[in-house]
Amino acid sequence: MSSVKSASAPIYFGSFLVTPQVFHQTPLSFALVNLKPILPGHVLVSPRRVVPRVADLTPAETSDLFLTVRRVGRMVERLYGATSLNIAVQDGVHAGQSVPHVHAHIIPRKPADLDPIDAVYDMLDGDEGDVGKAQREAEAGCAAESERAKNRPRFPVVDNEGRKPRTAEEMKAEAEMLQREMEKEALD
Amino acid sequence: MSSVKSASAPIYFGSFLVTPQVFHQTPLSFALVNLKPILPGHVLVSPRRVVPRVADLTPAETSDLFLTVRRVGRMVERLYGATSLNIAVQDGVHAGQSVPHVHAHIIPRKPADLDPIDAVYDMLDGDEGDVGKAQREAEAGCAAESERAKNRPRFPVVDNEGRKPRTAEEMKAEAEMLQREMEKEALD
Repeated sequence: MSSVKSASAPIYFGSFLVTPQVFHQTPLSFALVNLKPILPGHVLVSPRRVVPRVADLTPAETSDLFLTVRRVGRMVERLYGATSLNIAVQDGVHAGQSVPHVHAHIIPRKPADLDPIDAVYDMLDGDEGDVGKAQREAEAGCAAESERAKNRPRFPVVDNEGRKPRTAEEMKAEAEMLQREMEKEALD
Repeated sequence: MSSVKSASAPIYFGSFLVTPQVFHQTPLSFALVNLKPILPGHVLVSPRRVVPRVADLTPAETSDLFLTVRRVGRMVERLYGATSLNIAVQDGVHAGQSVPHVHAHIIPRKPADLDPIDAVYDMLDGDEGDVGKAQREAEAGCAAESERAKNRPRFPVVDNEGRKPRTAEEMKAEAEMLQREMEKEALD
């Protein structure tokens, strides 16, 4: 689990060579700094194997990835004087994933980092969080990606007043249905 | 790892008794349905032990939690005809956590579920994603939580045009600094 960085072992994030951005490696995962961090200390953790979906990971890769998230998160929280962390995986293109390689965002948060009233954008879902766009721009030396970014999926606006909490009976029925579905699920 | 549901073993999500909402249990984790799902199939996965932060989990709890997220995510994606998943942990109150008990949101996503242009709100950061508010309202039988919700942290609005991608040298320097910091980090 020690951090061994070797210039002779290139590391790819999707199709991007990111070796100089990598700051931590485990047998199955690596952590890298961002081209355009949303907030100070915003970093990514990925499996070494280039696969798009969490479901594509083996159990060992899944465990290693999130143990690395936990350890890296603790470090950036301490280092950047934060008090909380946003941890997010856009697992698939329709969840906003911009690079088809599993990656967990870790974003250190603190009380003074935002305006709670006006700050309504999820930057992860916006241009700001598009790590693929940033990497492509860096490699191409240009910024002609705006049309592409406009069409990325985002969280929907929902009329919150119009939605009612579900009843205990509705939730119990759904829980029982899902319990039966879980029993059909392969263990790994 | 089988799903064993027993009425004699009450399950708490923070201070809330959620046994009827639980649809899956492992030795160290459980999965529950939401009172007000953001999208169909939006569920939560928590460790059995009531602790607020991911850093409070043991390595075994961390692995079990995310292996459960992976398995439950695969199930809801299949069951709700989705093609992607948003996986998110608001790890601490300044990241928007509303119940001081670690929980991963799993939100099935598909192409037709949203308008990519106008849908700019991160509902997880809004009222919609406030699982604590929903649970409190359900228990109290009222909806007088609006002031509380207004003051929850959100992602900041950032002038994206004003931010430049960092140079390779800047990123390399940060990566080297973080690599040194990771070496100071305890393994568990």
